Amino acid sequence: MKDSDSYPPRLTKVVLDVLKTHIPSLIEFSNEISKVEGVSKVEAELVEVDAETDSIKLVIEGEGIDYEELEKTIKRLGAAIHSIDQVVVEKVKKR
Amino acid sequence: MKDSDSYPPRLTKVVLDVLKTHIPSLIEFSNEISKVEGVSKVEAELVEVDAETDSIKLVIEGEGIDYEELEKTIKRLGAAIHSIDQVVVEKVKKR
Amino acid sequence: MKDSDSYPPRLTKVVLDVLKTHIPSLIEFSNEISKVEGVSKVEAELVEVDAETDSIKLVIEGEGIDYEELEKTIKRLGAAIHSIDQVVVEKVKKR
Amino acid sequence: MKDSDSYPPRLTKVVLDVLKTHIPSLIEFSNEISKVEGVSKVEAELVEVDAETDSIKLVIEGEGIDYEELEKTIKRLGAAIHSIDQVVVEKVKKR
Amino acid sequence: MKDSDSYPPRLTKVVLDVLKTHIPSLIEFSNEISKVEGVSKVEAELVEVDAETDSIKLVIEGEGIDYEELEKTIKRLGAAIHSIDQVVVEKVKKR
Amino acid sequence: MKDSDSYPPRLTKVVLDVLKTHIPSLIEFSNEISKVEGVSKVEAELVEVDAETDSIKLVIEGEGIDYEELEKTIKRLGAAIHSIDQVVVEKVKKR
Amino acid sequence: MKDSDSYPPRLTKVVLDVLKTHIPSLIEFSNEISKVEGVSKVEAELVEVDAETDSIKLVIEGEGIDYEELEKTIKRLGAAIHSIDQVVVEKVKKR
Repeated sequence: MKDSDSYPPRLTKVVLDVLKTHIPSLIEFSNEISKVEGVSKVEAELVEVDAETDSIKLVIEGEGIDYEELEKTIKRLGAAIHSIDQVVVEKVKKR
Repeated sequence: MKDSDSYPPRLTKVVLDVLKTHIPSLIEFSNEISKVEGVSKVEAELVEVDAETDSIKLVIEGEGIDYEELEKTIKRLGAAIHSIDQVVVEKVKKR
Repeated sequence: MKDSDSYPPRLTKVVLDVLKTHIPSLIEFSNEISKVEGVSKVEAELVEVDAETDSIKLVIEGEGIDYEELEKTIKRLGAAIHSIDQVVVEKVKKR
Repeated sequence: MKDSDSYPPRLTKVVLDVLKTHIPSLIEFSNEISKVEGVSKVEAELVEVDAETDSIKLVIEGEGIDYEELEKTIKRLGAAIHSIDQVVVEKVKKR
Repeated sequence: MKDSDSYPPRLTKVVLDVLKTHIPSLIEFSNEISKVEGVSKVEAELVEVDAETDSIKLVIEGEGIDYEELEKTIKRLGAAIHSIDQVVVEKVKKR
Repeated sequence: MKDSDSYPPRLTKVVLDVLKTHIPSLIEFSNEISKVEGVSKVEAELVEVDAETDSIKLVIEGEGIDYEELEKTIKRLGAAIHSIDQVVVEKVKKR
Repeated sequence: MKDSDSYPPRLTKVVLDVLKTHIPSLIEFSNEISKVEGVSKVEAELVEVDAETDSIKLVIEGEGIDYEELEKTIKRLGAAIHSIDQVVVEKVKKR
């Protein structure tokens, strides 16, 4: 096994297209998302405002993001993942 | 708890679409905003000028911005937050 | 042989236009691709969503990517390579 | 007072839309502006030329620009501030 | 001779517009090109796909690329140089 | 005088829109301009060619450009300053 | 003479719009140009191909390019300078 000296693959970035209700605010929403295991940075951008909902673009970065916990947290906040727009997985060799 | 060695999430950037009256001037307005706890830089850009009001884009950066104090300061200056356009929350591991 | 002091050519980047079914998700798909010998980073971007399939752009980077194993992995995941859009091969002199 | 270890807010950049007469020239005008307390750099760009006046964009940078003195200097040179287009205020923590 | 202390001119970059058959694949094609004397990097980009042929843009970098060998290799692979789009020749002074 | 420890303002960049005759050539013209006191770099770009004249954009950089000498040199070369398009004046604190 | 401690002005960049015959090839043409005194880099880009001629953009960089020799070399290669599109002259202070 030539690659036996590598780290296991880790999810380091996900870009999500999310539909959320107006409440909680983008500040509270981003704060909750940032608490997910493995997340180090959350960037939330308002894309469109409708009567009941906000379309947002979520850029989540980290070192091994726990995607299952991320999905659950988004649902718990009353929001829905419309699409997974970008994924970055990295496998870094041990130094 | 794997993440017990992390800092709590901190608000490091907010971009706001704000409607303000002509007075106070953009200079005084930015100066007041910069006094909010946790703010280190305020960038205010004039977007549109109307008869009574100015539409401005406020880019606020810092290390743990106190968003409640920020909201109160904006209201006290006779301005209104039209929308929260971008939010960045960071959770940096202790070194 | 002047070039006898060079490394053999190594595939360091491939950009693929891939058609995949909705399942596995982009997260699981990227994770599997990243396990291919010689791959160090996988960036998957959603380009178009259709009823049955997703068009994705796969940017794969590494130090000597095993292209045969990559092809097999993509087929095993029920996806098809529509086109090879970019290839980078590097031959670095020994220092 | 958590922020007691911070510098007071300082005006570090102002972008002004200014209407000036053809005389003094842009060279002399910029030279005078650069003498204002706290200014370290003046960049003046010609935007529009009319029969009697020039529309210019003034980008003024410094460490604590004295805005009152700046305003007075511009008036003394026979020019008028049409609008304040950008303001940057910084509050840097003591090291 | 003031320039007697200079290296002879060396071809360090060539950009070619090439027409190739579908087989060999872009991976194999780039691999063969990278074996040419003096080549250190080959970047091949798919520009247009036709029934029988592929239009590709080849960016070849190196330290003294052997252009004659490059031409022969391209012909041997059943491809044709449609045009030489960019050339960089460098003459570096000895240090 | 708080600023008594500053350098006097110095002209560090001027962008001019200049109309010149075909002779002297852009090479000779730029060479003459570069001899002006305080100039360290002259970049001349051909903007438009007419029957008798060339429209050029002159970007002049230096440490304290002598603008009067610059104006005289341009006139002596049979050219005319159509407009001053950008001016940068810097006042750097002594270290 | 305040500037007595400066280098004489040196031509460090010229951008030429050149019309050449198909032969010599862009590779040979660039190689010959690079041999001109003071030239360290030649970048030739194909702009337009006509029945008898090629329109090329030549970007020549160096430390004191001998422009007369450059002109002669271009003529000797059967090509014509259509226009001088950019010139950079530098005068660097001795250190």
